[in-house]
Amino acid sequence: MTGEKAGALLPAALENRRRDVEGALLAVLPREGAEPAALVAAMRYSVLAGGKRLRPLLFLAGAESCGAERLPEDALEAAVALELLHTYSLIHDDLPCMDDDALRRGRPTCHVVFGEATALLAGDALQTLGFEVLATRPAGDSRAARRSDAIARTARALGVLGMAGGQALDLGATGVEIPEPERASHLRRIHALKTGRLIRLSLELGALHTGANADRLRGVSRYGDALGLLFQIADDLLDVTQTSETLGKTAGKDSAQEKLTYPSVFGLEGAFQERDLALAAAREAARELEGDSGLLAGLAMFAAGRDR
Amino acid sequence: MTGEKAGALLPAALENRRRDVEGALLAVLPREGAEPAALVAAMRYSVLAGGKRLRPLLFLAGAESCGAERLPEDALEAAVALELLHTYSLIHDDLPCMDDDALRRGRPTCHVVFGEATALLAGDALQTLGFEVLATRPAGDSRAARRSDAIARTARALGVLGMAGGQALDLGATGVEIPEPERASHLRRIHALKTGRLIRLSLELGALHTGANADRLRGVSRYGDALGLLFQIADDLLDVTQTSETLGKTAGKDSAQEKLTYPSVFGLEGAFQERDLALAAAREAARELEGDSGLLAGLAMFAAGRDR
Repeated sequence: MTGEKAGALLPAALENRRRDVEGALLAVLPREGAEPAALVAAMRYSVLAGGKRLRPLLFLAGAESCGAERLPEDALEAAVALELLHTYSLIHDDLPCMDDDALRRGRPTCHVVFGEATALLAGDALQTLGFEVLATRPAGDSRAARRSDAIARTARALGVLGMAGGQALDLGATGVEIPEPERASHLRRIHALKTGRLIRLSLELGALHTGANADRLRGVSRYGDALGLLFQIADDLLDVTQTSETLGKTAGKDSAQEKLTYPSVFGLEGAFQERDLALAAAREAARELEGDSGLLAGLAMFAAGRDR
Repeated sequence: MTGEKAGALLPAALENRRRDVEGALLAVLPREGAEPAALVAAMRYSVLAGGKRLRPLLFLAGAESCGAERLPEDALEAAVALELLHTYSLIHDDLPCMDDDALRRGRPTCHVVFGEATALLAGDALQTLGFEVLATRPAGDSRAARRSDAIARTARALGVLGMAGGQALDLGATGVEIPEPERASHLRRIHALKTGRLIRLSLELGALHTGANADRLRGVSRYGDALGLLFQIADDLLDVTQTSETLGKTAGKDSAQEKLTYPSVFGLEGAFQERDLALAAAREAARELEGDSGLLAGLAMFAAGRDR
């Protein structure tokens, strides 16, 4: 059970890009005070709440692991589309008819501040904006095939066989007695769809941005799957081992809602073992991509002990 | 006040394509019984509720007005993306935190049948699916620039300065006293964003599909704006002149919710005059595109007296 630390560090190469990512987010969001005022304010409130920007940073890591140097502005803007799409899912996930959560990233959730109707629309409009950004960055007809491929992949990662599908499975499993032999596989499937797909996608879009070939892309996808699993096990563990204050969101809500989680299926000790297995898989996939040390291996360590 | 008839006919050239449109919808939707079962069932329930398929048919009209012959399968599938996106907006619009409506297209609304959480996800996933279809149809790298242009236009029509923005303005104006001099312009702005943009977009995407040049596209856009306005005025009129049974949705709800509508702002007689002005503008724009008679002029007549 050691190795669980609250303040794991993001690799410096990514940490240093966080300010650029914030700048790109400001560039793609509607300006402060723009009309319609309540909708724009709600979108900005939730996006600019100071998250880790994990998914844009994973895009950058995916690009760097395939040999990209410092990315130009329009690539950064494509990367932050992933943050817009992630924030859309958080806003809708927090709504009263879903998880009914009042706290997110240490602040009242969007619907608590702006009301349910505006929060619903803010989530909707952020999904739309995410696709608009991916359709327009990087610009130029010569990049159109790549943009259109990125959008198709993103839509599959968000849709019925991705994030929305995972949410639906999660809903269907909440407060329901799943037979013992199926609990572990059901849990893995929910996590893979609900959060894993978007994490893998972020790395893949970065790799594709650099023109990675099919073989390299497969390696990035394998690493992305392991990393997504790792983040999710660690997240489940934090929900039971940390306070709401540290998390910036409501602690203990998974068990309160009788959700399938790694601790609830494997027990606390078993969940830490699962996490260590996922960490080993992610490091192995990282090694195949970049040798024995590098950004992806550092990211895996961060995922295993992250403080979010 | 004459000319308001319940059974206006769609031009035969479009009416005959309705079965093809239904076929294309079935081709792009997840199959019946696919997992996750509740989510897929909710998406299919709302999309396959037998609407008029107006937006895909407008895509076909836009294409035909620019000289396209019978469109291939993949163009039809791109056209039905518009129906997926429209249905997403209807499902969310009907939710309790929005219009709280129990009846749509003559059937219980999605959240009444499947619950709020699943309806929310079904709307979300239909937006996603709409973009996936536009990113993949028509296929081929040579069409990628056109696909990516279509997606960018669609996202703008749905976003903060489009449909979602119109919904937000509508929310902000509901049950609120808007000063008299601003009521008409506010109403026009809400309608133009909330429903007009998607109607114009449908025609534009059809025109762009045929490779229409910028000049012709401007003409199609002008016609689309007039047609969108015409549909909306007629819709407002039907809400006060028809029964719920005829409409297939709750009649009289606009005034019950104190919404800004053409009858509430201009009075019933004034609203019919506004409709006739919009009809004249749409016919004039149609004449510039296709001469004195044709599909677009027929569509304008249909819009003015439509039975939905």
